[in-house]
Amino acid sequence: MSGTFPALDERGQKELVGALLQWSLANGLTMYPPEFNAYLVAHAPVTLFPTPMPKQAFELGLQVQKEFNKVYANIVAEKKWLNEVVETLSTYDPEFTGKLFEVYQKSLVDGKSVQPVSLGLFRLDYMLDQVKNEIKQIEFNTVSVLFGGLSTRVGQLHQYLNKLGYYDRDYLYEFYDDIPVSSLDHDLARGLAQANEHYRNVCSPSTTTVVLVIVQPNERNCFDQRHLEYALLSDHGVKLVRMTLEEVMKSTTVRETRLYAKQTMDEISVVYFRAGYGPDEYTTTNHWDARLTLEKNLAIKCPSLLTQLSGAKKIQQELTNEGILKHYVDEKGAVDLAKTFVKIYPLDDSTQGLEAQKLAQDPEQCERFVLKPQREGGGNNIYKKDIPEYLAKLPKDQWQAYILMEIINPATHKNKIIRLGKVYDEEILSELGIFGTILFNEDSGDIYQNDNAGFLLRSKFSSSNEGGVAAGFGCVDNIHLV
Amino acid sequence: MSGTFPALDERGQKELVGALLQWSLANGLTMYPPEFNAYLVAHAPVTLFPTPMPKQAFELGLQVQKEFNKVYANIVAEKKWLNEVVETLSTYDPEFTGKLFEVYQKSLVDGKSVQPVSLGLFRLDYMLDQVKNEIKQIEFNTVSVLFGGLSTRVGQLHQYLNKLGYYDRDYLYEFYDDIPVSSLDHDLARGLAQANEHYRNVCSPSTTTVVLVIVQPNERNCFDQRHLEYALLSDHGVKLVRMTLEEVMKSTTVRETRLYAKQTMDEISVVYFRAGYGPDEYTTTNHWDARLTLEKNLAIKCPSLLTQLSGAKKIQQELTNEGILKHYVDEKGAVDLAKTFVKIYPLDDSTQGLEAQKLAQDPEQCERFVLKPQREGGGNNIYKKDIPEYLAKLPKDQWQAYILMEIINPATHKNKIIRLGKVYDEEILSELGIFGTILFNEDSGDIYQNDNAGFLLRSKFSSSNEGGVAAGFGCVDNIHLV
Repeated sequence: MSGTFPALDERGQKELVGALLQWSLANGLTMYPPEFNAYLVAHAPVTLFPTPMPKQAFELGLQVQKEFNKVYANIVAEKKWLNEVVETLSTYDPEFTGKLFEVYQKSLVDGKSVQPVSLGLFRLDYMLDQVKNEIKQIEFNTVSVLFGGLSTRVGQLHQYLNKLGYYDRDYLYEFYDDIPVSSLDHDLARGLAQANEHYRNVCSPSTTTVVLVIVQPNERNCFDQRHLEYALLSDHGVKLVRMTLEEVMKSTTVRETRLYAKQTMDEISVVYFRAGYGPDEYTTTNHWDARLTLEKNLAIKCPSLLTQLSGAKKIQQELTNEGILKHYVDEKGAVDLAKTFVKIYPLDDSTQGLEAQKLAQDPEQCERFVLKPQREGGGNNIYKKDIPEYLAKLPKDQWQAYILMEIINPATHKNKIIRLGKVYDEEILSELGIFGTILFNEDSGDIYQNDNAGFLLRSKFSSSNEGGVAAGFGCVDNIHLV
Repeated sequence: MSGTFPALDERGQKELVGALLQWSLANGLTMYPPEFNAYLVAHAPVTLFPTPMPKQAFELGLQVQKEFNKVYANIVAEKKWLNEVVETLSTYDPEFTGKLFEVYQKSLVDGKSVQPVSLGLFRLDYMLDQVKNEIKQIEFNTVSVLFGGLSTRVGQLHQYLNKLGYYDRDYLYEFYDDIPVSSLDHDLARGLAQANEHYRNVCSPSTTTVVLVIVQPNERNCFDQRHLEYALLSDHGVKLVRMTLEEVMKSTTVRETRLYAKQTMDEISVVYFRAGYGPDEYTTTNHWDARLTLEKNLAIKCPSLLTQLSGAKKIQQELTNEGILKHYVDEKGAVDLAKTFVKIYPLDDSTQGLEAQKLAQDPEQCERFVLKPQREGGGNNIYKKDIPEYLAKLPKDQWQAYILMEIINPATHKNKIIRLGKVYDEEILSELGIFGTILFNEDSGDIYQNDNAGFLLRSKFSSSNEGGVAAGFGCVDNIHLV
């Protein structure tokens, strides 16, 4: 039956929706509704059906993740190229990239990080190209990757509904053959636990150690984070404490380069950022002071400032250049990784850059592209025919702050999205995120742990250009293999 | 620290409440709020703190449960005494007990049940007597026992909060030494799975078998049931289908004494009643027809009509008579069980009954008692000084429909209840429910399985006389051992 779409009548869909809502509300596939009330929660927006994904394409993503983890660890450890790139980017984005880089430099003692060991929880986002039937890279994320907890649950949800026959009009069959379930929450918890363990072994703390997670205030998607916290406690017995960037200066203290939570004086082994990735989050000097305080101590950062900065799109773009890629990975790895690339151009004065400028301003050619700011965070991409107009208004000396990326011909699928109890029936576009965790030394380049860590599918109406479930459109989804 | 009460300041309590709410909403410790909306759910009402319970008293409850299971199985299998008691009760309560008994008789073929094997999911409710420091029986429940799913979760919740130090003002210690967690949802699921397995072995169904659960319409407490359903599926691969009593006649069919769910023609191995225990649920002949249809087929009932009727308070009362008890359990068992009894009197014309009539009408003595209707379900108990007045209005020939029970001197404790986000600070009274499952043959008396199945604590303000979380007052709680 795989690949086809369930044909449910009105009664069938009603029963499916009822079962889906109660499963979600019983199993923490939840999110605060827009009208916040601490004791009430809504189901998270999800698709009614899992979305088809070619098995081979999916497996390629899993296969290359650890190579990509390594590439980024190598880039960070080598430092030279990354420093150069970030320095250049800082001139175009002094207020954010520039500030992050400045804090990084301030955090060094005698030119070295106080804690050279760094934890990466990375997510590589892909889209399925329907022409090539292959997954193609959209973005490499090095900071604050979301949806670990909800991803596991939406997979379990679709599997449950399938098992009970809700996708079959007559409840007789399991409609889908293969719905893999990501164990993301446990996998990411394992990554944090490995870093905590490393800290305990190397730094010999005298007290209990805890993981500090830096969160955004009033997080509607807090249950996603909570699942990770509960997994860390139940799987590894490691406690996690939460703080906003705003609270760091008054709620932590550093003694002899060790970071402590003031209230309990528990020593912090790992600082895990689920906030602090966008310029809007640094509105006062207190926030920048907090970031420096968090960086300049023995706690292992997830990510360190340098690792966060390695997520610059410029790096991702340059890696599509075979010569550069091969500098960071062996021959075989380079061949595999290259299968996941689309063409990415700089908008500078290099030969490639000049070619890109032409393409971007051409009213026909521009349809093949998306213009992206180098900075992380999403939400500011310029698509297709909007590009020439946007560039026309942008001072030429700002162009280098953007990259031009070939748009993927994304597969669209029939599906339905349910949000706040209401069913929306449209074509969807999906983005597959593959996760990996890596514990490495930014000075020696040693890699202590390097693991796959599950996956995530996010979908949105194909009529909208931007994803982002937390922002109120789009939703969490799960794959079924075809 | 055990036995004492956490002294939290305002900040401490606020943080405790915040962690408690998010844990509940992330882990399905949930209930629909009074204003129903299919996509929104509230946390279930719970206590902020676990409630102390003497270890010895708790262990006695666990220890005697399997003996009690056996006593009731023996009473049902012997039939003679139970039939006599129920026949008498039917004359006082013809509209409900009488009707249930009538349906039971109609369901017999040549004087025998079509399916002699019966599953009991029993709950024995106790209160802790603060004078004796012992638990004393309140009620033996043979039908529709609640809170399997929520009980497990409230234990996990208190354990989580304790582990993270929320009960200590400075987050430094685990305030409570021993918070046992009930695995009720999995234990009850195991009972249902054992019955399903027995059915498959003995009745050799030709198709998939499913467990049919009879539910009340618009159940706010549906998540409690759902956890049992999910445990049954994940632990044993057994599906559960839901139906109201109203839907049974049109949604099931019986062929050659086998019961099927019409939609899928899956054979029903077990009928599990989470409804049908009170007279209000039988408003049309359709409901009585449904009950007869469900009874008169090969599916194993949980409970059978006869087992449901064995829950009559008259039976419980008579068992406090040593001579009767010893007829159903060995010497050693009788001694242990008797430790959990309080004095229960009939209100009939026996010597005991005449004594009870005097006590009940005495304005001083009545303070020691509660008057309970023989019928199941709760909500109609008459307490202490209300008894003489109530009896004065009740025609004398109705008195036999009641029993007079010595009130326990229940331990009250300082605690706080949180309901719909609001914290109530009062003394509470608690009821400890100990669960057991038994699979037995009502004809031969053979017992195939007999197991403990966890526990449950429900608490309410000591100022109110009636429990019942689902009704909007009272809440789920958990014990900590002292």
